[in-house]
Formats: sequence, structure tokens, C-alpha cells
Amino acid sequence: MKEITLKPFEGYEYAEGGVCAAKGFKASGVYCGIKKSSVPDGNESPISNVKNDICMVVSDCDCNAAAVYTQNKVKGAPIIVTKDNISKANGKMRAIIANSKNANTCNSDGEHKAQAMCKLTADALGIEPEQVIVASTGVIGQILPIEPVAEAVPKLVEKLDYNGNLEAATAIMTTDTVKKEIAVKFDIGGKSVTLGGMGKGSGMIHPNMATTLNFYTTDCNISSELLQSALDEVVKITYNCLSVDGDQSTNDMVCIMANGMANNAEIKAGSKEFEVFKKALYIAMLHITKMLAKDGEGATKLIECRVTGAPDFETAKIIAKSVIRSPLVKCAMYGADANCGRIMCAMGYAETDCDVTKADVYYISKAGKILVCENGLGLQFDEDLAKAILSEEDITILAQLKQGSSEATAWGCDMTYDYVKINGDYRS
Amino acid sequence: MKEITLKPFEGYEYAEGGVCAAKGFKASGVYCGIKKSSVPDGNESPISNVKNDICMVVSDCDCNAAAVYTQNKVKGAPIIVTKDNISKANGKMRAIIANSKNANTCNSDGEHKAQAMCKLTADALGIEPEQVIVASTGVIGQILPIEPVAEAVPKLVEKLDYNGNLEAATAIMTTDTVKKEIAVKFDIGGKSVTLGGMGKGSGMIHPNMATTLNFYTTDCNISSELLQSALDEVVKITYNCLSVDGDQSTNDMVCIMANGMANNAEIKAGSKEFEVFKKALYIAMLHITKMLAKDGEGATKLIECRVTGAPDFETAKIIAKSVIRSPLVKCAMYGADANCGRIMCAMGYAETDCDVTKADVYYISKAGKILVCENGLGLQFDEDLAKAILSEEDITILAQLKQGSSEATAWGCDMTYDYVKINGDYRS
Repeated sequence: MKEITLKPFEGYEYAEGGVCAAKGFKASGVYCGIKKSSVPDGNESPISNVKNDICMVVSDCDCNAAAVYTQNKVKGAPIIVTKDNISKANGKMRAIIANSKNANTCNSDGEHKAQAMCKLTADALGIEPEQVIVASTGVIGQILPIEPVAEAVPKLVEKLDYNGNLEAATAIMTTDTVKKEIAVKFDIGGKSVTLGGMGKGSGMIHPNMATTLNFYTTDCNISSELLQSALDEVVKITYNCLSVDGDQSTNDMVCIMANGMANNAEIKAGSKEFEVFKKALYIAMLHITKMLAKDGEGATKLIECRVTGAPDFETAKIIAKSVIRSPLVKCAMYGADANCGRIMCAMGYAETDCDVTKADVYYISKAGKILVCENGLGLQFDEDLAKAILSEEDITILAQLKQGSSEATAWGCDMTYDYVKINGDYRS
Repeated sequence: MKEITLKPFEGYEYAEGGVCAAKGFKASGVYCGIKKSSVPDGNESPISNVKNDICMVVSDCDCNAAAVYTQNKVKGAPIIVTKDNISKANGKMRAIIANSKNANTCNSDGEHKAQAMCKLTADALGIEPEQVIVASTGVIGQILPIEPVAEAVPKLVEKLDYNGNLEAATAIMTTDTVKKEIAVKFDIGGKSVTLGGMGKGSGMIHPNMATTLNFYTTDCNISSELLQSALDEVVKITYNCLSVDGDQSTNDMVCIMANGMANNAEIKAGSKEFEVFKKALYIAMLHITKMLAKDGEGATKLIECRVTGAPDFETAKIIAKSVIRSPLVKCAMYGADANCGRIMCAMGYAETDCDVTKADVYYISKAGKILVCENGLGLQFDEDLAKAILSEEDITILAQLKQGSSEATAWGCDMTYDYVKINGDYRS
């Protein structure tokens, strides 16, 4: 039910293996009891009966890395430490350590603890602490107990495996109901290159720059600068077009490590190969973005809002996100209620100068396509067809503004009783 | 349960009578069947078994008027017509006609129908159409049937009564569960002056300039210019600090009519009397704002967020509204979960430059007061006391920023299963 159809792209093949799909990346995950009361909570590890709460990803050799971080002014300690580490040791990054159940944010010793996580990892792997990316997700405002982490690190190192992706992907889940992984294979100058990744997060998702925890790995030979440039560009049209609830988290990051083991000639700026690489990143991130949307807290449907005929991409994006974010639109989608007034209303209060009052609005799903609003005016339409369209799991709201030639797509989900239930008592 | 305690203010007395409390104002309401399927829906008129869906308010003599309107770019037809009428006939305004069940917005003939409503009202009262304020609320994107309005107008005129306020207040209710009325008596230059009003609206409330439908009447002798100035000033610190769901409606307005029948000497700009009048307006609007928040769709609690120690009012307001609007905060309030991380998170993504990372956060209700976050760091606190505090109906979230001496308060409500239920199928 939470599955996303793999969209075909010529020249790219989907692969198994997630964050371990690229050459030379091992991963592992274990349960260490960061939050005792959370055992077991239903998100079970594929191997044990207890959900993993900490994971490690390690490259066989040094990596170039790039990352984007939350724009929230209240930043998690791991964000600060990771940023610092990448700035010090880029080109030599080797490992990721990430935990769920505690965000290590808004507490008195967060940075110290995040550094300790890096040190523990580095010591166990025989690398430097600066070569480690650290991330945490979970409850904000509590002290992170370091003892369970210290106990977990040797186990994580021992369990590191070229097929450990699933153990890692489940360890970062919080209220997620499905693990989120993807991998893509493509060709660069005759060499087979792989890019894979994993993501988590279903509530508190309204990224400005990045969102949630997302780790990508690739064996491509590409510089840190080009990696960062590709990441910035692709995040704009994937993660930054996602909204589950309008809440922008304090801890979110998207990072990517490239170890060059595919042995392709180093990718040059402005080259055809760079475009091929960026498209691979887009394919992977688009898929994870849709998975995050569809697995939004309590969600039963993936809602896509495509705004066309806009004067520019930014305007189209603001309008599409305004629609996707509207609680009234989200509730109407849950109820399969073809209320076009709510779409018009949400476009009307989007913070742009664009004239949205003449828009055509369609609902589209595999059950059909229906025009519900023409030139800004509500139409009489076939209510049965509209109901059938909106009763599907994957729904597109198409708004044609007729104000230009740019477009943008935003992804979100419906709002349900379960969203309220999940968030009414998150800490317990 | 949805009651708001009347806050005492020296020199002001609360009174009965709502929109009819001031001298020379009559009102009436009837059911005319604008939407047949909606009968009966539980919001029953105090007199009949069927909820009124159209109302009229009429002054015995000409009035000065002022209004503020939604900033949504998609504007309801009645907004356009009312704005036009007030600009043409200010000083001579006489009547209000307002309906629920259909917003007369995003349809092909909305302005024509809104003008027809004014003409019907004017003809029946022997006044000019420009002297009429027209407003509609309900489903967007449908044609407004004028026949039921035409049939209702003579009945409304016939039923006009100096005690008709309740009939009118129930006619504008949509998903409201309680009618919203207020009246205040005060003294201006030895004359007893009265100001009263009514409001509606519980979803799609996130005002930028105005919100929902709100009609105020007063017998004060005050010019249109000062009326507008008072309205602009008071709306900023009442209606504009309200957020139920972040959705800003297409049809909302706050208007006030002053007929001068209290016979006070005309209020002068900058005078002590003007301050007395503005405070009366503030008292009335504060009360209705709180009523709107507490009767938010599906709400069980009134949530007030007071941000102090801000560099300026605007910054404090943006931060307070960001907290009040956050779905995660709203769900936590519903679940009585003292999750201080969500408050910090919502302050952190508020669109200001203010440093919120050192804030102290308290939860306050009649069960007590508890500090949950100090200098931006989550505290260990008495969970039982926190639960008791958050289990009350009226809760204050106090955030002390320690960045200046300004403050603002915003009002909202919790998010519940019923919000989803109400909005999953609003049109049927």
C-alpha cells in the first residue's frame, strides 16, 4: 500500500541494495536501547524482534562528500558537528553513524555527545573523528544517553556487511511504517556506476533546504564541489518540494558520499557525464521523496500537485506547496471530496504575486481525469467520476495558471485521524 | 465547554444583545434553503428546528462604516461588492445581508448575485443598494441560487427586531458549534455608548488582515476615518493573531457600522475618548477572537501562545503564530503531551531573524505553571503536573525570548480527530 511505482528512465536501471548498492560500502544496524520504553514498538528489524535504533555506514576508502542541512534556526547538535567535520575532512570522509529515538537537540551537552559518537566510531574503525558524519532523529529536548551508543559501536563494526543496508535503513525509522531505500545503476564513460540511498521521516517534514535524514552513497569518481553542486540542484526539485505537515525539523540533512570505486574518469563540470550523474541523483531522490510523502504520518494517499503555466519555477513551487500543505485540502483528499474551492483558496493565499484567479484545476489518478475548475470558476462535474478518481491511492492535482511556461511539482499526503493519533502522544 | 470567560476591564461592562445591543440596530434571521440538503444539520436555530442560513442587520439611521477584508488573491464576490459599496456610500450605510451555506465565490456570476442581494435588500427597506453590506460564507465554487434569497428578504424585513441578534448570529454559522456574540457598554463624555458584534467561522481561519465574517455595530458618534483607524489597529492584535488551521479564507471580513445614536460629541482623533472607544473595540474583538479559536473545527482546547522579550511586536507575533499554527504542536496539545521540542522547532522555523535558541518555555493553565525548556534546553520536569496543566481546556504556552521588550499573543486550538472528520467531507 505504501509502495511507489518505479518510474522508468532511459539509460538507468533500478537496483537492490540501497545504501550498500554502490561498490565498497558496508552497513549495519542494531538495537541499543537509547529509549528503553520503546521496545518493541512494531517497527521491527527484519532479523530480530526489536527495531534497530542505531546504524553505521562505512566506505572501504576515503570519500568526497556533500550535504544540505535544515534551515531551522533551532539546529540539532549533530547538524553542527557534521557540518564542521565535512568542512575539516572533506575528501576523506569514511563513515556515517546515525540513531533514532532521540534527536540530541535542545539539550545541554548535545555537541559533546555528537562528537563522542564520532570519536567512538572513529576509534572502532581506526579513522579520525572528523571523517565521520553523525546524525540523530527522535524526541527533541532530552539528554542523549551515550552508554548505549558506546556499547553499540563495536557491535555495529562487527556486523558491517556489504548487504547490511536493510539493517541500517530500519534503524533510522521513527514513525515511518516502511523502510525507504533506492539504488540506480548507470553508465559513465563505459564504467558501470551505482548510486544508492536510504531515507527516514514522516512527520515534521516541510523542508526549506533539506529534509529528514537521508544518506546516499555512490562509487562514482566525482569531486566534493561537483557533488555539492549536484546535490543543491536536485534537492531543489525533490526534497524541497515535499510537505507532510508544514513543520520543518531541526535535525534534517541529506548527505552523499562518493568513494570513486567505479573507476570512471573524474567527472568534469559542465560535461555530459555530470548531467548523467545529476539525473541519477534526481531519479533516486525523486523516488525517496515520493516514499516520504506517501508514508507521511497517518497518510493513506500520495498527493502530487503539479502547477503549470507559471511565470517561473519558484512561483510554481510556492503555489504547489501551498496546496499540498493546506490542512483543508489534505482532509478533502482523505475524504475523496472534490472540493475545488479549497485548491483555489490555497493557491490564493500562496505568497506570490502571480494571478491564480484564472486557473484551470484538474484531479487525475489512474481512475481518470476531471476538470473541476475552469478560469477560476467552479464547474458542475460528474461527482461519481470525481469520487472514483479521488478514491485512488496516488492522486495528482493539476493547476494550469496560464501565466507563463514554467512548472513545478510538490508532493504530500492526505490528513487522517491517524496523523492526530500519532502526534497526540509522540513522546510515550 | 466552548465558553470563554469574560475578562474584566475597568470602565467597561459586558452586555447582552450582540449585534442589536447598540441603540437603533435591528436584526433577523431565517432559513431559506440555499442548500436544501443541509437541513437540518444540528446547528439549530433557537426558535425553529432548522438552522437559519440568511440574516439581516439594519440601522434606524445612516451609519459610518469601516471594514477589513481577506488578503487572499482569490476573493469572494461579496468582498468586491461590499468594498465598492462602502467606498460609494460611506456615511450612509444602513444594512447588512449575509448568508451561509454558499460562499458565492469562484463562480461565473458571483458579483451579479452579490449585487442582486443588495438590490433586494435595498428595495425591501426603501434604501439604495450601495447602502448595503453583503457577505457570504460556505462552499466555494458553486452558483448561489438567488431565488431563495429573493423569497427570504421580505421575511427578514418583516422579522427585523431589536432583539433579533440571536436569529442573525445563528444564520452565519457554518461548522461553528456555538454562536458568537459580544457587547460592551462604556462611557464617552457622560453618554453611555454600546458596541456589540457577532462572528462566525471555525475552519479556514488564518487571517492576514481580517478573518471570517464578523459584524460589529455601535451607537457611538465617530467618523468613518476614525472607525477605520480603530479597526485597523485592533484587528492587528486580535483577529490577525488567530490561526485555526493556517488556511486563509477567500471571503472573510470584519466590518463595523456606527450610527451615532448614543449622542456623544463626535470623537476626535488623538483624544482620550478615541482611546476609550478603541479599547471597547479591543475588548469585544478579543472575546470573539478567543471564541473563534476555541470553537475551531474539532477543537477541544483554547491554546494561547504568548511570546515575550521580543525585539518588536511583529517578530513576537510571527513566532507566536508559528507555534499556534504547527500541526505537531496542536496534536501534542490535544494529547496533553508536554513536548517542548515541538515548541522550539516551530519557533525555529518562524520566518524572522530573531534568535529563539535561548528561549524559556512554560506551559500555564489553571492547574499550574511549569517550565519545560530553559535557555533553549529541554528540562527534566514533573510529568504529572505537566499532564494536569495540559489537560485543562484553556492553555497558555509562554515563550520568553530574552531578546527585547516587546510581546504578542496568538490564539488557536488543538487538532483532533474531529478536524479531519469535519473536513473530510465538508460539501455533503
